[in-house]
Amino acid sequence: MKIKVNENYRLLEKNYLFSEVARRVARYREAHPEAKIIHLGIGDVTLPLPKVVTRAMAAAVEEMASRETFRGYAPEAGYDFLLKAIQRHYRRFGVELALGEIFTCDGAKSDVANLTELFGENLVCIPDPVYPVYLDSNLMLGREVAFLPATRENEYLPGPAELEDAVGHALEGVIIYLCSPNNPTGAVYDHAQLEEWVRFARATGSLIIFDSAYEAFVTGDFPHSIFEVEGAKACAIEVASLSKSAGFTGTRCSWTVVPEELEAGGMHLNEMWLRRQTTKFNGVPYVVQRGAEAALSPEGEAECAALVDYYRENAELMGSVFRDCGIAFTGGAQSPYLWVTCPRGMGSWEFFDWLLEDVNVVGTPGAGFGAYGEGHLRLTSFGSHEATAEACERLRRFL
Amino acid sequence: MKIKVNENYRLLEKNYLFSEVARRVARYREAHPEAKIIHLGIGDVTLPLPKVVTRAMAAAVEEMASRETFRGYAPEAGYDFLLKAIQRHYRRFGVELALGEIFTCDGAKSDVANLTELFGENLVCIPDPVYPVYLDSNLMLGREVAFLPATRENEYLPGPAELEDAVGHALEGVIIYLCSPNNPTGAVYDHAQLEEWVRFARATGSLIIFDSAYEAFVTGDFPHSIFEVEGAKACAIEVASLSKSAGFTGTRCSWTVVPEELEAGGMHLNEMWLRRQTTKFNGVPYVVQRGAEAALSPEGEAECAALVDYYRENAELMGSVFRDCGIAFTGGAQSPYLWVTCPRGMGSWEFFDWLLEDVNVVGTPGAGFGAYGEGHLRLTSFGSHEATAEACERLRRFL
Repeated sequence: MKIKVNENYRLLEKNYLFSEVARRVARYREAHPEAKIIHLGIGDVTLPLPKVVTRAMAAAVEEMASRETFRGYAPEAGYDFLLKAIQRHYRRFGVELALGEIFTCDGAKSDVANLTELFGENLVCIPDPVYPVYLDSNLMLGREVAFLPATRENEYLPGPAELEDAVGHALEGVIIYLCSPNNPTGAVYDHAQLEEWVRFARATGSLIIFDSAYEAFVTGDFPHSIFEVEGAKACAIEVASLSKSAGFTGTRCSWTVVPEELEAGGMHLNEMWLRRQTTKFNGVPYVVQRGAEAALSPEGEAECAALVDYYRENAELMGSVFRDCGIAFTGGAQSPYLWVTCPRGMGSWEFFDWLLEDVNVVGTPGAGFGAYGEGHLRLTSFGSHEATAEACERLRRFL
Repeated sequence: MKIKVNENYRLLEKNYLFSEVARRVARYREAHPEAKIIHLGIGDVTLPLPKVVTRAMAAAVEEMASRETFRGYAPEAGYDFLLKAIQRHYRRFGVELALGEIFTCDGAKSDVANLTELFGENLVCIPDPVYPVYLDSNLMLGREVAFLPATRENEYLPGPAELEDAVGHALEGVIIYLCSPNNPTGAVYDHAQLEEWVRFARATGSLIIFDSAYEAFVTGDFPHSIFEVEGAKACAIEVASLSKSAGFTGTRCSWTVVPEELEAGGMHLNEMWLRRQTTKFNGVPYVVQRGAEAALSPEGEAECAALVDYYRENAELMGSVFRDCGIAFTGGAQSPYLWVTCPRGMGSWEFFDWLLEDVNVVGTPGAGFGAYGEGHLRLTSFGSHEATAEACERLRRFL
């Protein structure tokens, strides 16, 4: 054909990180069908949906089977019952949202990637290492990207100073991605650090896109939402998800908060996002919305907390292995991820291949999350106790 | 903020067509709470999901409740069981697809809008009138658009000749949207007409994006898929949906076929779409995929055919009213839509308001589908028999 394609796709790595991991695992499995491989790689949960969720979904399926209670198109941003449940969820952190500021969607991945469509050619500032979707979705649009190194020196929590260092001049109107608790490092911003980011964003007319997908793992006096910081509604959008807290990776429900006061170039981002979603999205399935509502009910939040505690125990066990073996790592405490420094100076993919082939444990190579991820490997605590314990025993033996 | 926004959003009508319709209806309802309004506007179904679908979904919810059968992230393009069901569906029309050519998604709206991301700055050719998402999603990217007038003269089925007339010079490498059965006109391309489009696309190096969302309404010797035409795999992408055939408007499942041989500028569109979907989408909910598989089973297809027949009876009843009143219309036979010429020279919104206020029937103003839709109104057959009969009686009285 003689049509012009989106040339920016040539800038992308051929394979999405997790597809490449899957490819290598499949190849190994084919050659070694007897190997008992344990997956601590992709951040996928293993415990079933909370009972209150499946009860609600089963009831909703019943409704869809009957003419009197059948539901067709949902409001694109979500049914009020779900928006209100999310509104109540935020009140637990002292954050008050208008229903019109909440947009439900099929996943934080979709939301965080689709948000790029609202913007023109701004400098985009992305932590390194971080979830690859921030970078890839901006590369697809040909955006200029600056990286904020997350290193042992800054405890994997880059601040505005790192941004100014990276760019080397006074900044104005940039787009900043933050992820806390961080994927992959497990690092969490505290109140003072987020306040510093909000001050910086407001002073420079910048926008923060805050990914709180791992918020459920936060304990103690750390922020769950960027909107806990005063003034954040003038400079931040937040993306959240039920994937990790309620086991929704295969059920799909997320939400994005776009404050009504966000404005640039005379345009209201809330109205732009509504226009984007009504044009390009048709709502979350009714059955899923009822499941999400249940997950956010008091009973649901208790069941979700138990899921999170289960995974936290895995993280503690894995942490104890690396401590005992003298291998440096971060995360695991307020995050389902352990960010491990590869032993013996190995590179990320080298350590990945060694773990796969010799230990039959699958991690995720840190280099896949950015250049500063090289020399690290991400392990997740989303396995079963049994598989995680087995992996830990093997690790102890081999490390 | 000082960030730059996507300036193309200024080109959009402030309100998505159906949101504006909803706004006017809500305003009228507030002023006249006693009015018994009948909705023949938005293309939303009213019959419940087929029993075989809800049985499959209920069983899938059960699976999600148990650790042994729980499912996390799905393959982004869909589980093999669903891809194979779609593959079998196409064999009914004599079309053979590879599993890797099929990508399931949450809706034809999302797919048709997101496909724009794969392309550079091509001339985009859009029928007028047509489903507004084709235009809006291209305006959001700042694309140049040419309209193909669908008028009574060409029986609402513009061909390559109309395209050459509209653009006025030899064409090369354009993107052409076709929707058959058409939304809103109800017109259906026959084999010879689609063959002409495919010949034209191949001769000019152009790409056809074929929207077959209403394929289930096709009867007789008309194509259900553009891939029934020889050579179409070298120049066409097809978007299909279970929304109208299986009542999935609130359940959400669609698919897009991107043939492996589609190539432009040395890039394979199938690989680009896979990269897009793995980066920006996380799969259709497992429970929905099981429902979709059931809808495409032999038992499911029989139940879906009964749903379509029910709506077809509505369309016949509505058609008889307009015929008796001497009001011109098209569609209704192979489509859930009737495309009515507004009586007494009324404009689209004028007829809409009159119908709403005097007859308490909601249609969709033709002008909302494009300039050539002015003077028309779209009515849908997706209501209940009872409501449609009541609306028809009122229409007979008032027209």
